[in-house]
Amino acid sequence: MTDTAATLASVPGVSAREAATQGFVFNHTMLRVKDAKASLDFYTRVLGFSLVRHSDFPEAAFSLYFLAIVDPAEIPDDDAQRKAWVAGLQGVLELTHNHGTESQDGPVYHDGNSEPRGFGHICVSVPDLRAACARFEDLGVPFQKRLTDGRMRDIAFIKDPDGYWVEVIQPTPLADA
Amino acid sequence: MTDTAATLASVPGVSAREAATQGFVFNHTMLRVKDAKASLDFYTRVLGFSLVRHSDFPEAAFSLYFLAIVDPAEIPDDDAQRKAWVAGLQGVLELTHNHGTESQDGPVYHDGNSEPRGFGHICVSVPDLRAACARFEDLGVPFQKRLTDGRMRDIAFIKDPDGYWVEVIQPTPLADA
Repeated sequence: MTDTAATLASVPGVSAREAATQGFVFNHTMLRVKDAKASLDFYTRVLGFSLVRHSDFPEAAFSLYFLAIVDPAEIPDDDAQRKAWVAGLQGVLELTHNHGTESQDGPVYHDGNSEPRGFGHICVSVPDLRAACARFEDLGVPFQKRLTDGRMRDIAFIKDPDGYWVEVIQPTPLADA
Repeated sequence: MTDTAATLASVPGVSAREAATQGFVFNHTMLRVKDAKASLDFYTRVLGFSLVRHSDFPEAAFSLYFLAIVDPAEIPDDDAQRKAWVAGLQGVLELTHNHGTESQDGPVYHDGNSEPRGFGHICVSVPDLRAACARFEDLGVPFQKRLTDGRMRDIAFIKDPDGYWVEVIQPTPLADA
C-alpha cells in the first residue's frame, strides 16, 4: 500500500475540510495521574516538557497541570496571556491530580491497554532514537518494549509513573545498528 | 493563585529542560476505535482533521489512521516523506481499528471516565466556541456537557463515535451571552 495525499482523501469516511473548522487546533490530551510530583518530574526531566499552566481547585480537591515541549523563553509571564497562549498550542498534555491519590497503595489509574481497553498511548518523536533509549536506560525509566524486543525494531515504549505507555519514535529511518 | 513562568518552574517535581531532550516532539495520542469509517467521518467532517497517514496490517487484522489539523496543501505526496513529516508534527491523533469490531453490538471501547479511570479526554480549541457548539448541535453531535450545563460556562464536551470525550474551548474569554 502506497498512499498519496489524494488516496488518503478518498478513504471511506474522510471528508474535505469544512470552512467552519478554520482555526481549530488539537490542543491537548488529558490523563489522570496518581502523584503530580512524580509525573511532573518524569515529563519535565525525562521528556523535556515545560509546565506551562497550573490550576488548583482546593474545594474540589484536584489540580490541573498543563505541559508542553516549548522553548521556555516563549512562555508568557502574565497568567491570562499564558492561558490564551496555552489554549492555542498543539501538543499539550494535561495532567489531572485528584488530591490524596498519591498516598494510596499501588497503581490508581488504568493505562487502557488491558480490558477494558480504549486509550492506548501517547508518543514522543526524537531526533536520535537509539541515544534517547540509552538515556532512558541510564535514568532507570521502565520500558514496555525495548528497540530490541519483538519484530518492530524502530519503535520503543517506555512507561510513565502511572504506567501509561509512551511510544518513542524517530521520524527518519534508523541506521543499521 | 497567579503563576508566572518563574513560579511554574519551581512547582515540586518540575525540572529545567535537559539538553538531551532537544528536538523532542509530543507527536501523537492513540485511541482505539470500533468503526474506522465513523471515526474518520467525525474527526474530518466535524472537527476539521485531515487523514495524513494510513497503514493496514491485514495479517494482524488491524489498521492505523493518523489525523492532524493541517492545511491539506501541506501534506507531502510521497509516502516515505509523509511518514517522516507526520512523525515530526505535534497534535496528531492516531486511531487504531481492530478489524471486525465495527460489526459488534454496542460500545467496544472504554472512554476512561468511569471505573477503571485513566485517560480523560482530548481537547480542540476553536476561535468561536458558541458558533462551534451551535454547529455541533446542527450536525447532531452528542454532547457530554453543553456550555449551559453546570457551573463552567466556558467549556463544552462533545462525544466522538466511541464515546470518547472531546473538550471544546476558546483561547480568549467568552463575551457575555
